[in-house]
Amino acid sequence: MTMNNQNEASVTVFAPATVANLGPGFDILGLAIEGAGDEVTARRVSGATGVVIASIEGDGGVLPLDAASNTAGIAAAHVLKMAGVEARVELSIVKGMPMGSGMGSSAASAAAAAVATNLLVGSPLRKTALVEACVEAEAAVSGRHADNVAPAVLGGLIMVRRVEPLELIRLPVPDGLTVAVVTPHFELPTRQARAALPEAVSMGVMVRTMANVAAIVSACHTGDLALLGRSIHDEIVTPARAALIPGGQAAMDAALDAGALGSSISGAGPSIFALCRSPRSAQKAADAMIRAFKAAGLTCRPAIVSPAECSGARMISGTI
Amino acid sequence: MTMNNQNEASVTVFAPATVANLGPGFDILGLAIEGAGDEVTARRVSGATGVVIASIEGDGGVLPLDAASNTAGIAAAHVLKMAGVEARVELSIVKGMPMGSGMGSSAASAAAAAVATNLLVGSPLRKTALVEACVEAEAAVSGRHADNVAPAVLGGLIMVRRVEPLELIRLPVPDGLTVAVVTPHFELPTRQARAALPEAVSMGVMVRTMANVAAIVSACHTGDLALLGRSIHDEIVTPARAALIPGGQAAMDAALDAGALGSSISGAGPSIFALCRSPRSAQKAADAMIRAFKAAGLTCRPAIVSPAECSGARMISGTI
Repeated sequence: MTMNNQNEASVTVFAPATVANLGPGFDILGLAIEGAGDEVTARRVSGATGVVIASIEGDGGVLPLDAASNTAGIAAAHVLKMAGVEARVELSIVKGMPMGSGMGSSAASAAAAAVATNLLVGSPLRKTALVEACVEAEAAVSGRHADNVAPAVLGGLIMVRRVEPLELIRLPVPDGLTVAVVTPHFELPTRQARAALPEAVSMGVMVRTMANVAAIVSACHTGDLALLGRSIHDEIVTPARAALIPGGQAAMDAALDAGALGSSISGAGPSIFALCRSPRSAQKAADAMIRAFKAAGLTCRPAIVSPAECSGARMISGTI
Repeated sequence: MTMNNQNEASVTVFAPATVANLGPGFDILGLAIEGAGDEVTARRVSGATGVVIASIEGDGGVLPLDAASNTAGIAAAHVLKMAGVEARVELSIVKGMPMGSGMGSSAASAAAAAVATNLLVGSPLRKTALVEACVEAEAAVSGRHADNVAPAVLGGLIMVRRVEPLELIRLPVPDGLTVAVVTPHFELPTRQARAALPEAVSMGVMVRTMANVAAIVSACHTGDLALLGRSIHDEIVTPARAALIPGGQAAMDAALDAGALGSSISGAGPSIFALCRSPRSAQKAADAMIRAFKAAGLTCRPAIVSPAECSGARMISGTI
């Protein structure tokens, strides 16, 4: 019987950490990085239809094992639902990145689970549908946004034109562009970071912010690194959140002083990223950011220096 | 004596009408069109230093002959000031486009005057400086914005990243892209159109609007006409102003029904533009818009059908 043959099937997928917003591009820009991410193994097992979570490693015991409360479980369940597949899928999650750091931890788990589950059941869904499944997972824990899950699934630099229905645009990444990400040991829950946002912005501020987002997009297409860097400047979300992160503004300033093209908060923070011309420049920016946080009394995790163009979720082992 | 020799010098410059905003790109996007525009002749004459306006034709007698109150005069005076040239310059203005139509009438006069004056005194200023002089003129009559004057001077499709200091980005125009512009006989003063704007917008609306502007920019770079068209959609400025224009929304809807890629209000209105794949499609859209205005009780000026990529201000005659 088919079901019995499939009982042995299992697939393990890695999905990367992501840097979202990129300054003014709140909720619409995000890129995948390397050096951090989650692994999810999906197994087809016998039993009642649905998704269960067998284990979570690397989370310090804080993430829910209840599949309906966990972004990996929610994303996997949506994949089954969208594909119209009735199956019991067991997930094992290995967190390979800090949670609540602003690098898309929940998105990486969701992306890995969605891609693994889709592979497990014969790849009925296209990648955009997998991103949709992940958006449902994000909506359950931190708001309906796709700027982390889209690059976590698809890789590269993705612009979210619309969430419902989902419309994604891949942007070209200039050659050599490198990202430095520094994460201080400081807890800034996404909910608190979202609560710091203004409810409304003036037309003047909106126009200037739109212009910077438009300039980022143009600079990616033309490879104008200087324009890209100075357009990372944001008047709305970044200052509101930087006020919540000790040393946050100092770290951004230090990155620019060290030669970074631009610097802002990664996602909801507290991680700070810098866009740089080269890995060497990015390492200098990372060192400068770590020193700035130290001066503000915070230690940091080891810095990540990554190409700005990285792969999205991919299978790393499996028996399918 | 040099001054006497230059007394005979004169130069006539044409500057085109422009379509600004392009839907969501309020104050940051604008493009030059052909088929309408202003001519300004600048003459060096003897007398006290400064700019005077000798004549204005085609304005129905409504524009001020006082150079300090007229965008052509203000722009010309700023050119002299920025260039550090002490001279008396006399301007003759021929309006070749309707005023208060949302096609950048004040910008075309300013652009033609700035370029003519600069040529007259030996071209000391770069084109960006000429745009700056025109921004000062716009600021005096309708607010500090560059989305009409920049394409009127430079031609093509221009993004205004910043007004102060001025930073402009030229965007590529997809092959074949054509603009239809229809102007109903209906007075909508720019001040009234600006007063209709909301003072602030919610974060959700801002994010969706930014995403559309970003998508327009990306679509211009990739030549994705369908994406360009659907990204012309705007939730903020266009509905607020369309409510002031009888038949305005119906005209936009009619353009889309006739096959236009996208349609919105040109500048502050009441003109409505449509972006189309070809001149033939643009003519169909124009006819449909004129019918929609007629159904709302308004007659229209002859429609303009123009390539989306057109030249900016240029000398058409002169003795310099």
